[in-house]
Amino acid sequence: MASMAAVLSKTPFLSQPLTKSSPTSDLPFAAVSFPSKSLRRRGGVGGVGSIRAGLIAPDGGKLVELIVEEPKRREKKHEAAELPRVELTAIDLQWMHVLSEGWASPLGGFMRESEFLQTLHFNSLRLDDGSVVNMSVPIVLAIDDEQKAQIGESKRVALVDSDGNPLAILSDIEIYKHPKEERIARTWGTTAPGLPYVEEAITNAGNWLIGGDLEVLEPVKYNDGLDRFRLSPAELRKELEKRNADAVFAFQLRNPVHNGHALLMTDTRRRLLEMGYKNPILLLHPLGGFTKADDVPLDWRMKQHEKVLEDGVLDPETTVVSIFPSPMHYAGPTEVQWHAKARINAGANFYIVGRDPAGMGHPVEKRDLYDADHGKKVLSMAPGLERLNILPFKVAAYDKTQGKMAFFDPSRPQDFLFISGTKMRTLAKNNENPPDGFMCPGGWKVLVDYYESLTPAGNGRLQEVVPV
Amino acid sequence: MASMAAVLSKTPFLSQPLTKSSPTSDLPFAAVSFPSKSLRRRGGVGGVGSIRAGLIAPDGGKLVELIVEEPKRREKKHEAAELPRVELTAIDLQWMHVLSEGWASPLGGFMRESEFLQTLHFNSLRLDDGSVVNMSVPIVLAIDDEQKAQIGESKRVALVDSDGNPLAILSDIEIYKHPKEERIARTWGTTAPGLPYVEEAITNAGNWLIGGDLEVLEPVKYNDGLDRFRLSPAELRKELEKRNADAVFAFQLRNPVHNGHALLMTDTRRRLLEMGYKNPILLLHPLGGFTKADDVPLDWRMKQHEKVLEDGVLDPETTVVSIFPSPMHYAGPTEVQWHAKARINAGANFYIVGRDPAGMGHPVEKRDLYDADHGKKVLSMAPGLERLNILPFKVAAYDKTQGKMAFFDPSRPQDFLFISGTKMRTLAKNNENPPDGFMCPGGWKVLVDYYESLTPAGNGRLQEVVPV
Repeated sequence: MASMAAVLSKTPFLSQPLTKSSPTSDLPFAAVSFPSKSLRRRGGVGGVGSIRAGLIAPDGGKLVELIVEEPKRREKKHEAAELPRVELTAIDLQWMHVLSEGWASPLGGFMRESEFLQTLHFNSLRLDDGSVVNMSVPIVLAIDDEQKAQIGESKRVALVDSDGNPLAILSDIEIYKHPKEERIARTWGTTAPGLPYVEEAITNAGNWLIGGDLEVLEPVKYNDGLDRFRLSPAELRKELEKRNADAVFAFQLRNPVHNGHALLMTDTRRRLLEMGYKNPILLLHPLGGFTKADDVPLDWRMKQHEKVLEDGVLDPETTVVSIFPSPMHYAGPTEVQWHAKARINAGANFYIVGRDPAGMGHPVEKRDLYDADHGKKVLSMAPGLERLNILPFKVAAYDKTQGKMAFFDPSRPQDFLFISGTKMRTLAKNNENPPDGFMCPGGWKVLVDYYESLTPAGNGRLQEVVPV
Repeated sequence: MASMAAVLSKTPFLSQPLTKSSPTSDLPFAAVSFPSKSLRRRGGVGGVGSIRAGLIAPDGGKLVELIVEEPKRREKKHEAAELPRVELTAIDLQWMHVLSEGWASPLGGFMRESEFLQTLHFNSLRLDDGSVVNMSVPIVLAIDDEQKAQIGESKRVALVDSDGNPLAILSDIEIYKHPKEERIARTWGTTAPGLPYVEEAITNAGNWLIGGDLEVLEPVKYNDGLDRFRLSPAELRKELEKRNADAVFAFQLRNPVHNGHALLMTDTRRRLLEMGYKNPILLLHPLGGFTKADDVPLDWRMKQHEKVLEDGVLDPETTVVSIFPSPMHYAGPTEVQWHAKARINAGANFYIVGRDPAGMGHPVEKRDLYDADHGKKVLSMAPGLERLNILPFKVAAYDKTQGKMAFFDPSRPQDFLFISGTKMRTLAKNNENPPDGFMCPGGWKVLVDYYESLTPAGNGRLQEVVPV
């Protein structure tokens, strides 16, 4: 733990252990606060004055923040209690979280039809001043016929949790048809059955969408011990400013970090230094919302990331680890734009894009759903992302001659071993070791422990979590 | 025919009867020429100097024309004879026609992958200068594994007709995967079986796409008696200039013109005059490429349009009738952008958009494939179409109190009769008459004659041309 101790003073967001036994981790969310929260003002950070000229501006010029200020919360809660109610699913709540903190700036709430249509057809929104921002994934809220009837002519609704507690108010609402098939086809480029997000959040969702202006009554907290890692874009900007970042490179991930990733991130920093930047900061930004059943759950991934920093594979002084609250679509080239755009709002001006980003196997055919190169190609051409520097992923593989992960050298392919995510998971499940140097031992142990935790006591067989 | 005679001197493109007995209509295409052809230069009209400042500029600033100039044709044909060959289908040929005349300006040939991906994801192309043009429908050429193998390492191919005659050269080629499912899903918003264009041109097409720079060896002619109506964008611009048009409003159609259409077009001209334009010209622009089996074929539609002008329903002095050579996708909101964009290149700065443009019934569900309002909404927000004035279609219906087509008055719905395309076709098939004032008698007779022509002699039953 010596290395963690050294980190404490400089990287506050890594400074607390991830284990559930942490003294603060299971407290109700009111007790978990970040210094920058008090600076928050609805309608943007423009007035906060804390954004350095050096950080990339948020989309639309200012960061949208949709959380009601403390003095008005009581009043708003009273208002919410009188309104027709729409109960949110877990994924709806994740999107509300995303919207509330301005990851989707300048979007001010769940999409109305004009925003939904622009997203589906153009992956971008045209603003009143004629400028264009990227927006590739619909952020919408579905309601069913019965809910629509209950709302009637009301222009406002309360969004409530499964216990009926009001979480937010949606105003100046617009209710329009939910064209599920078209939404799926245009977002995923397929309508094949078995898309994880579709099955979880669309197939059985209501036939209507409701959009409007969002006001969230309290900051969203999950009380899972990980809330302190859920920095908002404003908080990240503050942290990046504090570190005097003059370049911020974001790395989106939803998998354990192996040494190939680490090599890539370290090498990116080296390249940025060579380009003349004085203090490039890595935003290591695991996705925290809905993921498919065979992905490693967030809490285990966070433990694994912690070990990777502890073991010195990444430098904590130049790394910020934080959780990106978005749910995962697995929509490949469409979704990677969302992943990149959201990070602009958090202050990142460089984005690392890998092979087949946000991709997965085709749900019914024996092939990848997306061409592995389309993601980076689409990202490099996407409207509204012109300000972002796209850094294509160099291919890293296990170099048998060096006994470590290294960038693939096409002149000697026989020396390299490619270890896929599937292969990695299979090894960890079977409590086998990968080649030395593939992943730091502490990180690997977390993975093995995770799969171990899935094995019922007294039964040697692993629970089937990977759909065949 | 007195009214036709009066038209002769002022509307040369309407001046020749449409019947096959016309002295020029069945001549080989070399004998059919338009004055403006001699002004054509590859690479654009920029040097021609014939475009008035008053006409809207083509997309990308200059009209792309890809037809080899006469002095170089012999040489190019010799070159083509030596190249690997790609045989074109009827629809490929229609797209080659579209490209060759610059309807898709600034596109210089069948799409390479970067253009294809931008079309699928963004419905637009970003140009080198950072500006954006609309491009919503992929204009691509499919080849199969065998053709790909034959092309080998060649950087150029000849495009040939079904007899092996070279029609064009494609240079600096790029061959890339044809992601059929993704193309269909993103273009149509569904992958349901039974989409007419998909079944005709995609399902059985090759697994590769080939893009490159196109040089067409001769102007495309069909020798069907209608070539004189197939004015290129450059020719239309010349004609519109000759008529001193200060506003050009395009009306895309693939159906017979009834008096509701005519009312709309006449009313649009009136509104434009009220807006201060001195000489608004209607571009009545029936689609001439592939249509589905139950649409009325082009030659019958052209006869019907001719009658509508003869009968004085539309004013020939302020109307240009011409054929738009594009095939039809029936891709609703995606396709209507293409229909509008192409007309900018022909000089139109106003575009009339109706209910459910380019729509059709869902191929397997009992509903329309697209929301009837999405087309005009998407069109009004589409990137690259900001310069075009969108004129939403006012709803016309048969007013029983007046005995004619009139704009629907929601205060007295009981007075109006809506006659759908299906209803119209059913009446014509059964040789029944619509209400007086629905369509001019001459135009209606053409429709009745068409359905009559489908009835085999001695058999009272109509051939089944409408898929159930």
